[in-house]
Amino acid sequence: MRCGRDIKVTAISAIDRSKNRGVDLSKFTWHNNPISLASDDSVDVVAELIGGENGAAKDLVEAAISNGKHVVTANKALIAHHGTRLAKSAEAANVTIAFEAAVAGGIPIVKAMREGLAANTISEVYGILNGTSNYILSEMRQTKKEFDVVLNQAQELGYAEADPAFDVDGVDAAHKLAILTSLAFGCELNFDAVHVEGIRHISPLDIEFANDLGYRIKLLGIARQTENGIEQRVHPCMVPLNTPLAHIEDVFNAVVVNGDFVDSTMYEGRGAGEGPTASAVVADFIDIARGRMPNTFAMPAHKLSKMLVAPISSHVGSYYVRFMVADKPGVFATISSALNDYNVSMEAVLQRGRSENKAVPVVLTTHEVDEASMIATLDAIKENDAVMEPPRLIRIEPFN
Amino acid sequence: MRCGRDIKVTAISAIDRSKNRGVDLSKFTWHNNPISLASDDSVDVVAELIGGENGAAKDLVEAAISNGKHVVTANKALIAHHGTRLAKSAEAANVTIAFEAAVAGGIPIVKAMREGLAANTISEVYGILNGTSNYILSEMRQTKKEFDVVLNQAQELGYAEADPAFDVDGVDAAHKLAILTSLAFGCELNFDAVHVEGIRHISPLDIEFANDLGYRIKLLGIARQTENGIEQRVHPCMVPLNTPLAHIEDVFNAVVVNGDFVDSTMYEGRGAGEGPTASAVVADFIDIARGRMPNTFAMPAHKLSKMLVAPISSHVGSYYVRFMVADKPGVFATISSALNDYNVSMEAVLQRGRSENKAVPVVLTTHEVDEASMIATLDAIKENDAVMEPPRLIRIEPFN
Repeated sequence: MRCGRDIKVTAISAIDRSKNRGVDLSKFTWHNNPISLASDDSVDVVAELIGGENGAAKDLVEAAISNGKHVVTANKALIAHHGTRLAKSAEAANVTIAFEAAVAGGIPIVKAMREGLAANTISEVYGILNGTSNYILSEMRQTKKEFDVVLNQAQELGYAEADPAFDVDGVDAAHKLAILTSLAFGCELNFDAVHVEGIRHISPLDIEFANDLGYRIKLLGIARQTENGIEQRVHPCMVPLNTPLAHIEDVFNAVVVNGDFVDSTMYEGRGAGEGPTASAVVADFIDIARGRMPNTFAMPAHKLSKMLVAPISSHVGSYYVRFMVADKPGVFATISSALNDYNVSMEAVLQRGRSENKAVPVVLTTHEVDEASMIATLDAIKENDAVMEPPRLIRIEPFN
Repeated sequence: MRCGRDIKVTAISAIDRSKNRGVDLSKFTWHNNPISLASDDSVDVVAELIGGENGAAKDLVEAAISNGKHVVTANKALIAHHGTRLAKSAEAANVTIAFEAAVAGGIPIVKAMREGLAANTISEVYGILNGTSNYILSEMRQTKKEFDVVLNQAQELGYAEADPAFDVDGVDAAHKLAILTSLAFGCELNFDAVHVEGIRHISPLDIEFANDLGYRIKLLGIARQTENGIEQRVHPCMVPLNTPLAHIEDVFNAVVVNGDFVDSTMYEGRGAGEGPTASAVVADFIDIARGRMPNTFAMPAHKLSKMLVAPISSHVGSYYVRFMVADKPGVFATISSALNDYNVSMEAVLQRGRSENKAVPVVLTTHEVDEASMIATLDAIKENDAVMEPPRLIRIEPFN
């Protein structure tokens, strides 16, 4: 076979032994308790596909490492929360934790960053890291339906879980981003430092305005080296229509990595599902069978630096803001004057529709400004009686 | 450093020792004859960056292998023409030939296919493999200028060589495609079997019609497993606007790989230039320093299969055809009747402009048909006196 060495499944554990998986499991040792896989002498490599940042998954991985067994895992929550410590234990035990399947499913992005781009100093990594959210945003754009309606539809199709919070509130993307950040910058994982916003507030109106302004709305994870430290943020973004990222639709994921030698590179594919996960898990097995056992992250775990965290308030960028205002004289003067007070410079303004009784949207985009000033401006504006709903803010990412 | 082992430059060879390269070369051993690098005891790995399928490059690589030294090369022509034989010698000598820089520059596509997607059976690999051609086509679309004008401009900017044939006639892309084909299908390289067409015939008129029909014209390399064998072809294609590939502009390259587990994955970045090439060359060095020495291709060279070649005449696809015809009655009947004779089914037809004296364009797109029938149809039509120029045929690649 391809790796020049046989890989044999010897033992298995799952909740329900009798469930029909379309494969005859009778020839493999069965463990009712997954943790006992870690002390099975027939096992050299443990594949952890349980999920969850704690509980059985963590116990199994820790036990496997203590017993000198390699680990292959698809568990992004586990790595995002405990990756640094687990990598240190693994290196001390001279085994590897491989987690290609934990980030962007079938796209070999972990290998690309750890090995393919190893010659580069990385300045930023960003991308569409959650297929469910990308599907919902694509579908909202194409059908002009509201978030809730499309979410229900995604749940019926099996693209979204019964509890969709991890996907649509950005947590899943944040797990993946925390891992990519460590790979990019050689720092310890710091999931708690990720600024996270989801897509529940995105409306078809914003999607339409985005289009008129030359953008697509995408839920992105972005990690960037700035002069204030490392920014890690997951939130909806306005992405220019002339970038390839704007055209990544449905459940697909895409990751962009910028390196000093290589400039911008992009990796795209399915971020989840049985096939892509299996592809990544088996690739890790093949690497281990070939004796190709890299550092867990881009460098030895004990050499990972502490992260200097740039707070979101120090973020500098341009913004899209939508106000819903009463259609009466003076409203726009109020908005302009607040922008002026905080030195926020307007780039474009769009107003659509007129109504004597209902709120009408006023949309503006800004030039670059720090986030603290932007928030202060919105706080001032929303005090005004003519502003009928909380202003909606979406960060613009020009990627140039 | 990142690879956990020092990499030291010890010896160098080039044509002109005194050329200012911005680096002090005096501390390295200098060889006037590059081949003598292969017998320098201070050298463990030879980097061949000479280029060309024969001559000094080939002599150096062969000598290095015979002397038990690893080789890192950016030489796509050498690998495309002699890759199978060189890989066999390297494996016999227990050394590796690494060539990440030979395909798509800084994009780690060789590693992705050989390792990241190792669990998959690949059904097709295709992409934009030549940055110069992609720049010219992007520029022609944006400026509506003719090929010759844009080529001159590309030459002035240093994006095209004084002799642009390798780039614009598809040879460079064909070298890369032949390598990707072997990585994808585990077969011996077969450069001579690549069907190659360049972009000299593409006119701004075709680019405009493409846009009206929902396509971009891109020079693609495509390798596909078909029921007739393996197709390898490099030619201009109509690519649907709703695919990410359509939005890869300027000098960027992109490669799409379809695997059975992973489905479609795409890799994008700069295909050429000092930085991207250095990124790929150094990544190969780091792999070798880490002791990560894979097979040269996806499997041991002696196990690569002979390629069953599918001839271009057996290609099945849909087509864009542009005729330049005299604007008089009966012309369209002639075209329709020929299509009918060869069972070519029309999908759409566009006619633009009227002129009593000049030829006017008639464009049609077809449903799927075999290429032999399509060519026979065009041969019949061009016999007609009202057809003023050879018909222009561009294959449509729907990618669905």
